[in-house]
Amino acid sequence: MRERIAVVGLGLIGGSLARRLAVSHDVIGYDADPTGRGLARAAGLTVRDELAETLRDASVVFVAVPLSDLSTVVSQALSAGAVVSDVGSVKTPLYAAVRSAGHAGRFVGGHPMAGSERSGFGASDPGLYDGAAWVLCLEPDSHVDTWLRVARLVTGIGARVVPSAAADHDAAVAAVSHVPHLLAAALAATVVDAGPLALTLAAGSFRDGTRVAATAPELPTAMCRLNRAAVASALAEMTQRLSADPGPLIQAGHRARLAWEHRSSAPADIPVGAGLQDRLLDLGRAGGWVARVGEDTLSVVVPEPI
Amino acid sequence: MRERIAVVGLGLIGGSLARRLAVSHDVIGYDADPTGRGLARAAGLTVRDELAETLRDASVVFVAVPLSDLSTVVSQALSAGAVVSDVGSVKTPLYAAVRSAGHAGRFVGGHPMAGSERSGFGASDPGLYDGAAWVLCLEPDSHVDTWLRVARLVTGIGARVVPSAAADHDAAVAAVSHVPHLLAAALAATVVDAGPLALTLAAGSFRDGTRVAATAPELPTAMCRLNRAAVASALAEMTQRLSADPGPLIQAGHRARLAWEHRSSAPADIPVGAGLQDRLLDLGRAGGWVARVGEDTLSVVVPEPI
Repeated sequence: MRERIAVVGLGLIGGSLARRLAVSHDVIGYDADPTGRGLARAAGLTVRDELAETLRDASVVFVAVPLSDLSTVVSQALSAGAVVSDVGSVKTPLYAAVRSAGHAGRFVGGHPMAGSERSGFGASDPGLYDGAAWVLCLEPDSHVDTWLRVARLVTGIGARVVPSAAADHDAAVAAVSHVPHLLAAALAATVVDAGPLALTLAAGSFRDGTRVAATAPELPTAMCRLNRAAVASALAEMTQRLSADPGPLIQAGHRARLAWEHRSSAPADIPVGAGLQDRLLDLGRAGGWVARVGEDTLSVVVPEPI
Repeated sequence: MRERIAVVGLGLIGGSLARRLAVSHDVIGYDADPTGRGLARAAGLTVRDELAETLRDASVVFVAVPLSDLSTVVSQALSAGAVVSDVGSVKTPLYAAVRSAGHAGRFVGGHPMAGSERSGFGASDPGLYDGAAWVLCLEPDSHVDTWLRVARLVTGIGARVVPSAAADHDAAVAAVSHVPHLLAAALAATVVDAGPLALTLAAGSFRDGTRVAATAPELPTAMCRLNRAAVASALAEMTQRLSADPGPLIQAGHRARLAWEHRSSAPADIPVGAGLQDRLLDLGRAGGWVARVGEDTLSVVVPEPI
């Protein structure tokens, strides 16, 4: 089913999404930055110079602007009447804003777990989402048909759609993404302050452990501030673990890393029908995802417990 | 100058070293594990079944056994009369042991900053040390001629030889290597305990931040225990940074990571002669290294201050 889709924000995330969606849909892009618009046009995308014009004819809008502008642009898109999704890395505050405007039924908060330390349309890649986990939130006031419509688009570009309540998402990404940014920053700063000898000896474990510190600092700063409570909680747990004896800590970390690498999973089907929302939320809590959205059935994957 | 070299311990580190040294020298290998000896023989190395026999004719011995056995095997090698170096990741306790046996003049404590989360001869690679930093310690009771002899071998296999006092080395690697292992372990354990949803959302920053947690746990556990004081100090600094406002922390980490990536350096020469030991220690403290050991001159590289 071909959709008329607007993608607002054509950086690494939005640019990659627009390029991939344009393979199967009518896509119009917009970016506040004329340079980004120029690069996107040069790559063959249809791009408008005005946001209002971009939103006018779209039936589905993906908002991929920085966190600081997200709530404003999502509101504008919802006012234009379309189904709206986004790619922001913190979901609870955005749902509060959307809900207070009475638009929750047409909104599906999203978060692709993909990216890199690079940014801008120049870093975009239509293959970025192949196999990536992509959270689509389900809240008590969500409309499951709207969710399925967005899920069809997202599975259509090769991503694994993970259904989650917004608060569960925010707690999980605090641990898997926001705290790793803080660890990388603290490690890089500690090693530089340790002096030139330490910098010369810094090799593989430093390189890997600090890679995300190369990210433009505005992004992780905004994420950590917006997700303050969940980040503080995950960080407190980290700090407590670090204060313990290294032997059991390293053993537990080793088991955990291998369990993550070698987790196995099994396919299953979920019928589209009554009780779907609860079934989807159960699926997401178990670490599962939707691989394909059919007319009557969702093809899903459920990992084994570890 | 062709040397008769023994490499004791043929895992990832010793196996890679033996294979690379054998290109230009007479190398005899030994491993306590018959399987490792078999793999090394199959790869074309000369391997003995007894340690004493391995040490008998060697003029230089590299000891690459696990930290728990290091002090014992280094003592055996020194008793056999050769120049001895090692590849252990903590240097101060080993120097104390060597010194108490009266052998410091023939010992050059070493530490290659290379490796991976894999282990064993099967993971060895003669190219592992190309461009890697390799610390060779200089202590007040070191003999600089012995140091130069080992440094010639190590630069000869393509590594950058970093001169350092043992205590400075231990402080630096606590920050660049041992603490990163603890961070990786704590992060992996935290995410697993956060539940299956978090595991499904774990992507790039988790993968990179926990890579070293895949290492066999005995190695980092032994390092952290043996280097306890320096690790505790680096960890306390990390924890303090993590308790601060994320904005300045992420900024500082970003600057630090980029400074490390883009550090520039300039070549220089150091004449072999009086005062060489102090000059080498100054070089190492400035983050510099020896690239080549000539008869009268050392070719060195000095990074710009950052």
